[in-house]
Order: sequence, then structure tokens, then C-alpha cells
Amino acid sequence: MEKNKKLVEAITSMDVDFAQWYTDIVKKAELIEYSLVKGAVILRPYGYAIWENIQGYLDRKFKETGHENVYMPMLIPESLLQKEKDHVVGFAPEVAWVTHGGEEKLQERLCIRPTSETLFCEHFSNIIQSYNDLPKKYNQWCSVIRWEKTTRPFLRTSEFLWQEGHTIHETAEEAQEETIRMLNVYADTLRDLLAIPVVKGRKTDKEKFAGAEATYTIEALMHDGKALQSGTSHNFGQGFAEAFGIRFTGRDGKLQHVHQTSWGLSTRVIGAIIMVHGDDSGLILPPRVAPTQLVIIPVAHHKEGVLEKAEELRQKISAYARVKVDATDKKPGWKFSEYEMKGVPLRLEVGPKDIENNQVVLVRRDTREKMFVNMDDLETVIPRLLDEIHDALLAKATERMHTMTSVATTPEEMREAADHKPGFIKAMWCGELKCEEEIKEVYGLSSRCMPFEQEKVADHCICCGKETDTLVYWGKAY
Amino acid sequence: MEKNKKLVEAITSMDVDFAQWYTDIVKKAELIEYSLVKGAVILRPYGYAIWENIQGYLDRKFKETGHENVYMPMLIPESLLQKEKDHVVGFAPEVAWVTHGGEEKLQERLCIRPTSETLFCEHFSNIIQSYNDLPKKYNQWCSVIRWEKTTRPFLRTSEFLWQEGHTIHETAEEAQEETIRMLNVYADTLRDLLAIPVVKGRKTDKEKFAGAEATYTIEALMHDGKALQSGTSHNFGQGFAEAFGIRFTGRDGKLQHVHQTSWGLSTRVIGAIIMVHGDDSGLILPPRVAPTQLVIIPVAHHKEGVLEKAEELRQKISAYARVKVDATDKKPGWKFSEYEMKGVPLRLEVGPKDIENNQVVLVRRDTREKMFVNMDDLETVIPRLLDEIHDALLAKATERMHTMTSVATTPEEMREAADHKPGFIKAMWCGELKCEEEIKEVYGLSSRCMPFEQEKVADHCICCGKETDTLVYWGKAY
Repeated sequence: MEKNKKLVEAITSMDVDFAQWYTDIVKKAELIEYSLVKGAVILRPYGYAIWENIQGYLDRKFKETGHENVYMPMLIPESLLQKEKDHVVGFAPEVAWVTHGGEEKLQERLCIRPTSETLFCEHFSNIIQSYNDLPKKYNQWCSVIRWEKTTRPFLRTSEFLWQEGHTIHETAEEAQEETIRMLNVYADTLRDLLAIPVVKGRKTDKEKFAGAEATYTIEALMHDGKALQSGTSHNFGQGFAEAFGIRFTGRDGKLQHVHQTSWGLSTRVIGAIIMVHGDDSGLILPPRVAPTQLVIIPVAHHKEGVLEKAEELRQKISAYARVKVDATDKKPGWKFSEYEMKGVPLRLEVGPKDIENNQVVLVRRDTREKMFVNMDDLETVIPRLLDEIHDALLAKATERMHTMTSVATTPEEMREAADHKPGFIKAMWCGELKCEEEIKEVYGLSSRCMPFEQEKVADHCICCGKETDTLVYWGKAY
Repeated sequence: MEKNKKLVEAITSMDVDFAQWYTDIVKKAELIEYSLVKGAVILRPYGYAIWENIQGYLDRKFKETGHENVYMPMLIPESLLQKEKDHVVGFAPEVAWVTHGGEEKLQERLCIRPTSETLFCEHFSNIIQSYNDLPKKYNQWCSVIRWEKTTRPFLRTSEFLWQEGHTIHETAEEAQEETIRMLNVYADTLRDLLAIPVVKGRKTDKEKFAGAEATYTIEALMHDGKALQSGTSHNFGQGFAEAFGIRFTGRDGKLQHVHQTSWGLSTRVIGAIIMVHGDDSGLILPPRVAPTQLVIIPVAHHKEGVLEKAEELRQKISAYARVKVDATDKKPGWKFSEYEMKGVPLRLEVGPKDIENNQVVLVRRDTREKMFVNMDDLETVIPRLLDEIHDALLAKATERMHTMTSVATTPEEMREAADHKPGFIKAMWCGELKCEEEIKEVYGLSSRCMPFEQEKVADHCICCGKETDTLVYWGKAY
């Protein structure tokens, strides 16, 4: 295993090699470290702190919308995994199997959860009797394992942290409402916390979750024009309920099956933060999710009073922002690079001259704008700047997503877009799997979603020419 | 799998069958449900909410004492587990082995973490270069698996949730300070959050953690006189550092090994809450850890204005206490039993007569004391009562622990205490493994700890009669 390199080394430019740029950032911003198990990574304090902020924000939203947290065991008996036919086909090829407990060979293999539908279903079937017991709206924070062949930190790892919501309802309408409500919670969280715009829509049958009736998704666009599925919400209808016998006595006195949903969001969104906002100096963190929102760098810190002033400022600022002082002996320029690499939204420099003038220097990470600010104004300026940075990042990303979304109405335009216009491609589709597969094969594009905001950019399927009303976002994806 | 029984059924009395009383509570207070995998349980919303409160409290304490959260992979390669000799002997017999990933047989078996020392050691060895990099003070929230033969909810399950702290330091003194600091954090948390008194002390070599130089423990006493090890803190010295090559360049320019600690506390303490405070009506939750601190029961709730008043009270009270209204159609008496079973510290009854008199009825779960309180006084009365309940529970548990602690100075007294005095037994010990094993065999008592508060209850080892200064707490344990 390679020892950590010093931060002062520059990272690869994203224009030279986007994949290497990404890998450089996750390592040099100290978000992750590789582990001995292929495809599994260590979330270091800085990377985990970002996840804690996402988790805290989402957990509040989940509770506000009436959800309760629970914890299911991580091991699933093979026979339980097999109860829902589509589900087992989708997941069995990528699970890790436990065959021995201590010295003993197990009578039945157990898999480590790749997702917990089967466990929730089994539990629901044991605790539900009548409509009075409904709805049950549960969420779980945990890690899951999917044995992936090709892995990349945050985007695709054999183990990852996530939350999975699982709910059961009396009626189909309630289940559908829940499915869309939680998709909106995800979209709003990406916008309001991570400053990331998304396209909301429904997945095609080919791309939907194994066992779902309908899967909804939020799709974000990365700097390199590739799409990243950033959160999904599934309506299961009564499929799992039938397979697992989750029945209740309804208001009409008759036994019936529940209507069910599940929805999940993972550490993958940290990959989105990097690839939507980052630049060649490193990470750029949206202020609301940044573990440190402002770093104080004392200049000429051996001079009398400088460190004391830095500490005094830290205490005051800590009332309204997450702040730290870097009082180490490293050179200021070195520190500047380090916190740029780590994407800290604001840098505050304070030295003997500044103290004399009762001012500090503030530098924005996103625009590198440098401001002289009176110390007495910090309380109003810093919170305002943090909001401005959030808005600017969101505006920039939204602008880029629009610029990088093209329209194709003919096969020639599709060819041109696929080869020369990285980003989303809007094109009509007839709804046939055959055409979806052909588009994948011919253009290398997968369907990202059928957006909620439908437009009729043409009358005919881009592939077979059949008449259709359905617009699809296509793209290359992580 | 048995369907949930209705709560109205009485539970087994603790005097009749303590084990059954315990099992009845964990099921009927809806803390857990059994799963299909033997020994693994489902933490239901009410049980998980208790854990969330413990987690939130401890996490703040960890951060206040300078710790950062990280996340390590859950799978450990067999060769890594084997690097520290004592550690592998202690844990290998009880780990779950993953042998297949998807369809493929793995080249090397991986175990699901029973604890993560080996992973942290490997990581530390990759990120540490000089004394400037020290200390590293990490914590991890996760679940672990230990393949136990006999299991009981919370007390011993094949999977459980916990936190594990892992720190490395420049000097032996710092590591020892950290070890004791975190033991004190645990003891203070049990006292201040869970209203549980503990004995703090050091484990004998026989009982220490596999691979540790010294293990410290907090031992709590359950209602039935059995001890429960409720949290442990280990000083590893340089043992793991040598096995894993965790070295740094010191201030003297020489390469040396770090000094290391680890410490853990798990959902096991929920078992302690049940067995320290509970009674024959169910759970009694200390207010600070209770998911609901006060439940409002509208009486004659179909009468005009009652539900509105209940909701108005809920809103006001929510500013200073965790409160809910039970507005269901169940009979008040049934609701009283339900919230008694769930151990909600305070019940507030409000009906038409009360509204007329601008008063409510408050009932304490612990003493069943009933009070008429003017509505305008609730804001001062409720917070005060919650504190009083905490103090009363702690005082009662402390009193019981003292009453149930006896002294043995001769083998006859030891016999008498072991057979007829449930609880801790204080007796002197020479320090020899042989005597410790003999005491286990002859009296069925294990050494709980060598308490920090040493007393000289006798001059000689209770077993061999050799002169000694060492007092040990002995007991039967979960």
C-alpha cells in the first residue's frame, strides 16, 4: 500500500485526465484511503464528516415526514432472498456469501444484505394485522455489500453506506404519494444542501429496481458530461407483499395485501459533489455540507497577539459557522493550498497589519474573490457569503446542466450528440426494450429517465420511427 | 414466527421468572422482534430510538474530547486477522466467514468484523509518519458479528450495534490517560443519561480483551443480582503496533512504535436499562434517554374541546420535553397499561373537568405518584419532575447496588454469599490465575474487576490464603 503523498503536489488537471483528477482529489483531500479488500474503501474523518452532515440533514427530513428508524440484521438466509423472483435474479449474482460461523459450516448460506427488502418484508408480515397498523414508514442507516467487478471510490464500491426507506400502506394511492414524496426529498436535498440540480423522472422497465413496479430517479450531470444516478425511489405495488404474504384486514373486513415502497440514497452523492463542483485545485464544498465552512489562517503567527486574535475570532464565528484555526508551523501558502484542496468555502487571513486596521482578509474558494472586511462586520458578512456561495455553485451547475443538454430528433443528430456533445441528450422513445437496447449498442447511450417534465421534441421514436409521446433523457453514466 | 401478542396481557413477574420477565418486556414494549437468523434481532422503532439517544449523547462526548468519526470496511482478510497472535485466538472461533463473492470462490476467506482493531492498525500503519501525525483519535459507529451459541436480546446477540474507539499516541502516558478518560465517559454516561451506577475497575488478565495489555470495565448490577459488563476500555501498549508495524519518527529522530487504545460500548446497555429500572408493569425509562418523556392521554376525548386542548398542550410542552398525544380510540385504561409497559416517565391526563379547572393530572411511571397541576405551571413542573425521576431512579439503583454488595473474608463466607446473597461479592485475591479459576469452579463466580476504589477487607487471598493487597469484585454475570 502506497503511503500518503504530501498535499503540495499538484493534482492531475481534469481536462487532461478526468478519472485521474477524481482519484487524486479523493486521496489528497483525505476523503478516503484504500483498504486491503478490493473495492472497499476507508472513509477518513473528512470524508465521513461530509456523510454525517448529509445524514443529519436527511434524517431530520425523514422524521419530519413521519418516518421512524429501525435496524434489521445484516445477514439474509438464501431462502429468504429467493422469495421474490425478479429480486433474486437482480441481486444474487453480486452478493457476498457467509458459509461458516466460527468453525461450523452453516446449514443454509447467508448473504450480507445488498439491500434489505426481503428482511423488511419478512418483518412486516409478522407485525401487521389490520388497517389500524398501517402505514408503517421505516428507514434504516447501514452499510450494504454488492460484489462489483469494477469499483471507484464513492461511485461504485463493494461496500457502501446508505439509508434505505421501507414503507407499507393501505392503498395504492398512498404508496404512490410516498414514492414521489421521498424522491422530492432527495431532489430538494441535493439542491438545498449539496447545490446540485437534478432531472427527476421515471426509469424505463429495463433500468428499474429488481422487483419494483416503478422506479423513480434523480439524475445529476457531472463535469465531464456523464450522468450520475443519485437517488432512487421505488413503488413495489403488491409484488413483494404477495411473495412474502404481507396481508392485513381492511376496512371492508377482507384480507388484502399492502402497497409498498422503498427508497435509497448513498455515499455516492459525495462523488457527485466532487464531480459537479470541483476544479483543478481540488474539492469545492457547498457551504451547508462542508465540515469546516471557514478556516482561519494566522499570518506571521509568531508575532505577538496574532494567535490570540485568531482564537478570539474562532470563538465568535463558531456561533454561526463551522470554523477552525490552523495554527501549525506550516507556511501560509502551503496552508492555502491545503484548504483549497479540501474545498473549504471561506478562508480568513489575519496578521499584525490586519489587527492594527481592525480588519481581516476573506477569500472565497469558488471564485477566489478576495475581500477586506471590518472585524465588526463578520457576523453579517460570513453567513451572507456562505449563502451566496451556495447560490453561486447551484447557479453555475444549473447553467452547465442546461448547456450540456442537447436535443436529438434524427439518428444523425443522435450520432452527433453521442460522439461530440457530452451531457444529457433529449430524444423520443417508443417504449420498446428493443429500441432501448439498440440505442445502447449503436450510440453507447443508456436511458437515464423519462422526465416528469415531458416535452415533445419530435413525434417519432429516435430508433424505430414509431409514433410516440415519450421523451427520454439519454446519456453515458457512472 | 409467532405473531405479536396484544399488550394488555400481563407479563411474567420478575420474582417468578426473571429471564421470562426480561423476554416479555423486550417483546411487549416493542423494543425488538426476532429475525430468521438465530441470535440476530430486529431493533424496532422504540428500541432503536433509545439507541439513537445514547448514540447522540455519546457522540457529542466523543467530539468534545477531540475524537473524529471514520468508517472502516466490514470485511477482514483472514491473514490480517491473524497478525496479532492473542487477538486471533480470542476472536477466530466466533467470526462469520465469507467464502464467495457472487458466483466466485474467494482466494482468501474474509470475516465479518467482530471488532475492528486489525483494520484500524493496518490503516494507521499507512497514514502515520512522524510525531506530528499523532495522536489520531478515531471512533466508528457500526454493527459487528460474533457467532455466539447462546443468545439473548441486547445482552448477547450474534450481531449488535456499537461504537468502537481506536486511538494512537506518542507516549505510554497519553495512551493510559486516554484509556481512563474514555472509561470515565462511559461511567458518566451511564450515571447521567441512564441513571445507572457502576463499579469502575480493571479486569484480571484472564478476563481482559484479546491482545490488550490492560482492560478496564464498568460493571453494573442487575435487579436479579447478576453483573453486566457495560463498557470496556483497553490499553494495548505497543503490542498491536509491533504486530502491524505502526511506527513513527519521534522527536528524537528515531523510529518507534505508537501506543494504542480501544474502547467500546454497545446496545447491551439497553439490556441494563431494562434490568436495573424495570418492574412487573414493564419498562421504566430514565427520562433523558426516553424517546417519549411524557404522553398525553385525552380522557373522554370525544367531548368537545378535549382533543384540541391535548394538542395545544403538546405543542407547548414540545418546547422543553419529548411529548406525544395518544388520540386513538383505545380505552384510557388500556393506554395507561401500554405506556407503563413502554416505560414513559410521565403521563398527563386531561379531560373536560380538568379543562374547566385549568388543571391536568400528572402520573409518574416510577412511583405512580399522581398530582393535580395547574396548566400554567406545567413549564416549570414537568422539567423539574423529569430531573427528579432521573435522580430517584439513580438513587434507588445505587441503594440497591450497595445493599446487594457483600463481603467475604473466609471460604465459608464466600460459600454463603455465592449461594444466598445475589450481587457483588468483595473478596481478596492473590493475583494467580489458578485461584481465579478455582473460585469460578467452586463458587460459580467470575471476577468482575479489581475496583479503582481498593479496600483491604482481609489480608489473604480468599482461595489460597496467600498474603495480598488486591480486592476483587466477584459475581455471576450475563
